[in-house]
Amino acid sequence: VADAKQARRLTPDARRRHLLEVSLTLFARQGYSDTDLSDIAEAAGIRRTLLYHYFEGGKESLYVAVLQHAWADLASRMTIDPVRGPGLMPDNLRTYLDLIEAGDESAEVVRQSRRLDLASVKETTRTASRAIAQNMAINQLGMEDPPESVLSVFQAFMAFFEGLLEEWAHGALDRTQVEGVVAITLPAIAAAARDTGS
Amino acid sequence: VADAKQARRLTPDARRRHLLEVSLTLFARQGYSDTDLSDIAEAAGIRRTLLYHYFEGGKESLYVAVLQHAWADLASRMTIDPVRGPGLMPDNLRTYLDLIEAGDESAEVVRQSRRLDLASVKETTRTASRAIAQNMAINQLGMEDPPESVLSVFQAFMAFFEGLLEEWAHGALDRTQVEGVVAITLPAIAAAARDTGS
Repeated sequence: VADAKQARRLTPDARRRHLLEVSLTLFARQGYSDTDLSDIAEAAGIRRTLLYHYFEGGKESLYVAVLQHAWADLASRMTIDPVRGPGLMPDNLRTYLDLIEAGDESAEVVRQSRRLDLASVKETTRTASRAIAQNMAINQLGMEDPPESVLSVFQAFMAFFEGLLEEWAHGALDRTQVEGVVAITLPAIAAAARDTGS
Repeated sequence: VADAKQARRLTPDARRRHLLEVSLTLFARQGYSDTDLSDIAEAAGIRRTLLYHYFEGGKESLYVAVLQHAWADLASRMTIDPVRGPGLMPDNLRTYLDLIEAGDESAEVVRQSRRLDLASVKETTRTASRAIAQNMAINQLGMEDPPESVLSVFQAFMAFFEGLLEEWAHGALDRTQVEGVVAITLPAIAAAARDTGS
């Protein structure tokens, strides 16, 4: 993240990106409720009113943009290949668990967002996680253009996976157990997903 | 639900139960944010200040009591039997899907509570859903006293199941597909749960 002095010299596009980065860091660290626009403006080295120029809807629309960015970031880290598909699962899983262990900001914002009761956030989550479900349909089933019902089952899998992560955070499961559970259950969930489409 | 006049003649225990019933109905219909203590007091036919006599923490503690009551209500509808266990799953599933289709208030409050970002609600959810995980461990694995990790995997299954229900609510899956997915995936999830405990 550039410091406040550098921020003043940015072009509009670079400024918008910089604002997203600064906001991602603050939301990841403090959560949605405890972060306000003044914090973000201060960290970005701009006036609070200028934030509304970039994000007209204020804090909520800034947050939605950050959340979309975070999901896209996570999706971009997946390896996707319709041929080697299912074999990639352990790698993709390991990558994601590594991100969480490293306190990755995108992973943290996505995790927290599950608990926010805002229609815009729910809508963003559903749309953005659909992209990951699509990647999973390619990898697990070799389906480039799956029916909606297939995507739905993979989205439900993501809720299952986050449930496992929450138990891991509580110390009730360890990382090896999380990996073992996914290795056993994902093939069955993929088979069930395929069945809904036939 | 008794009407306001009857409510005035209740014993303290019956009054508390009546307040929980009235609150369950209002929370199910309006959600947490849009329900306030005045609505509840009015529907119960008592003064608002008297509510604090029964629920000292006000709205949040009343809600937590309602949520515990709702979870217990859902758990009580499960058929549990360590011998016939896995064979009961289709019945238990059907019962729960019937409740949802009928707009059952307990099921509705539990569903909404997943989206509330309150520490007390999260804690209640984790504790209360643990009781259902325990029932699942008996039915699916014949385990009366399972290790924590087994319960954790069944709790993650519940998140998966609610993900399926959400997709059903969106019209992306139909009820038959939800039943089919659970029939295929639950045995694999139960096997994975058992593995974590060995």
